[in-house]
Amino acid sequence: MARKIEFYFDFGSPNAYLSHKVIPDIEQRLGPVFEYKPALLGGVFKATGNRSPAEAYAGIPSKLAYEQLETARFVRRHGVTAFRNNPHFPVNTLQLMRGVMAARDLGVFMPYVEAVYAAMWERGLKMDDPEVFRQALADAGLPADELLARSQDPEVKAALVTATAELVDRGGFGSPTFFVGDQMFFGKDRLREVEEEFVRQREAEPAGAGA
Amino acid sequence: MARKIEFYFDFGSPNAYLSHKVIPDIEQRLGPVFEYKPALLGGVFKATGNRSPAEAYAGIPSKLAYEQLETARFVRRHGVTAFRNNPHFPVNTLQLMRGVMAARDLGVFMPYVEAVYAAMWERGLKMDDPEVFRQALADAGLPADELLARSQDPEVKAALVTATAELVDRGGFGSPTFFVGDQMFFGKDRLREVEEEFVRQREAEPAGAGA
Repeated sequence: MARKIEFYFDFGSPNAYLSHKVIPDIEQRLGPVFEYKPALLGGVFKATGNRSPAEAYAGIPSKLAYEQLETARFVRRHGVTAFRNNPHFPVNTLQLMRGVMAARDLGVFMPYVEAVYAAMWERGLKMDDPEVFRQALADAGLPADELLARSQDPEVKAALVTATAELVDRGGFGSPTFFVGDQMFFGKDRLREVEEEFVRQREAEPAGAGA
Repeated sequence: MARKIEFYFDFGSPNAYLSHKVIPDIEQRLGPVFEYKPALLGGVFKATGNRSPAEAYAGIPSKLAYEQLETARFVRRHGVTAFRNNPHFPVNTLQLMRGVMAARDLGVFMPYVEAVYAAMWERGLKMDDPEVFRQALADAGLPADELLARSQDPEVKAALVTATAELVDRGGFGSPTFFVGDQMFFGKDRLREVEEEFVRQREAEPAGAGA
C-alpha cells in the first residue's frame, strides 16, 4: 500500500533537521519516497501535553547529556558536518511554519525548506526576528517579501492549523514523526525501522497489485 | 578493549525484561559477553531526578500509546511470546534487588534472575508481597528461606547501594542501560547499536592485542 514515507517536521526541532539531512541517503536506496508535511510543534505540544526534550529533561542532567551523546553519534554516523546548535534556541517557529505553507502555494516549498533549515541549524540565526528571517530568505534567492506577505493570509494560517491537527489526529506528539502507511514512527533514531517498514510493505504488496 | 557488554537492570522494568529475553539471541552471534549488573531503579531515579515512562508520560496519552506500540513491535520482532504486563505494576523491587545480591553470594545468580523475571513479566505476580516472593523462589527450586534471610544482611544491602551508585556515577539514569567499554546506551531499542559497537571495538582491537 505505502508508496511514500510521510515526514512531519517543524523547523524548531534539531532532530527533524538531522532527519532531513539523512533523507537523501535513504532516497538513494528507495527512490524519492518522502513527503514533507509541516506540523507546528507548539500546536502539537499544546494539543497533546507533550514538551520538548530540552524542557522535559531540564531537571535530569544525565538524561540530557545522553540525548546530546546520541545526537553526536547520529551526526558522526551520517556525516552531518554542517550541524551546529542554534544559540537562540528555542526559536519561535510560527512565522517560519506559516511561511512554509506560503512557499508551497508559491511553488518554492523545497527551496524554502532548505533555506530555513540551513539558517536555523547551520548558520545559527535567530529566525524569529522578522528582519533576520527576511534576509535569510533573500540570501537564498527566494521571494522574501512575497512569502512574508502571503504567510499572513488567513487561508495560509488556517492551512497550518489543519496540517498540525492532522498529525495530532493520527496520534503524533512530536517532531520528527514518520508514517509508512498507517505505521507511525517517532524520532530520528527510528529512521532505520522506517526504511525497513517501507521495504516490507513494498514487498508485501508490489506496485500496481492493489490498483 | 571491550570483551563484555554490561547490562544494568532492575526487575521492575519491563524493558529490562524484554532485553533479557533477547540477550541469548545476541550471544548466539557474539558469544557469552553479557555481564548482568543489578542497579536499584528507585535509587537511580532518586539520584538523577528521572522517572519511569509510565509516570513521565502519564499526562501525554498519545506518547504513552506510542511507547506501547514500540513494545508490541519489539515483542513481535523478537518473538518474546511469554511477555505479559504485570497487573500489579509498579511493583516495589527493593527486596527483589537485595535478593539478587544475596543470590550472587549463594551462587544462584542467573537461576534467581530467570525465576524473578518469569514471576514478574510472565506470571504477573505481585512480587512485593513477601509470601508471593518466597513462593516464587521455592517454585523455581531456589533456597527461598536462605535467600530471604541473606537479603536482610547489612552487607548485602550495602552491596546493592554500591552497585546502584556505580551506574549513577557512570551517567546512567534508567533501566536497561548497557555499556560497551565506556560507551553507554540506554533502552531496549538500542540493542542493535550495542551489538554493532561491541563488534566495532572487537575488530578495532582483537583479543590479546592490548593484553
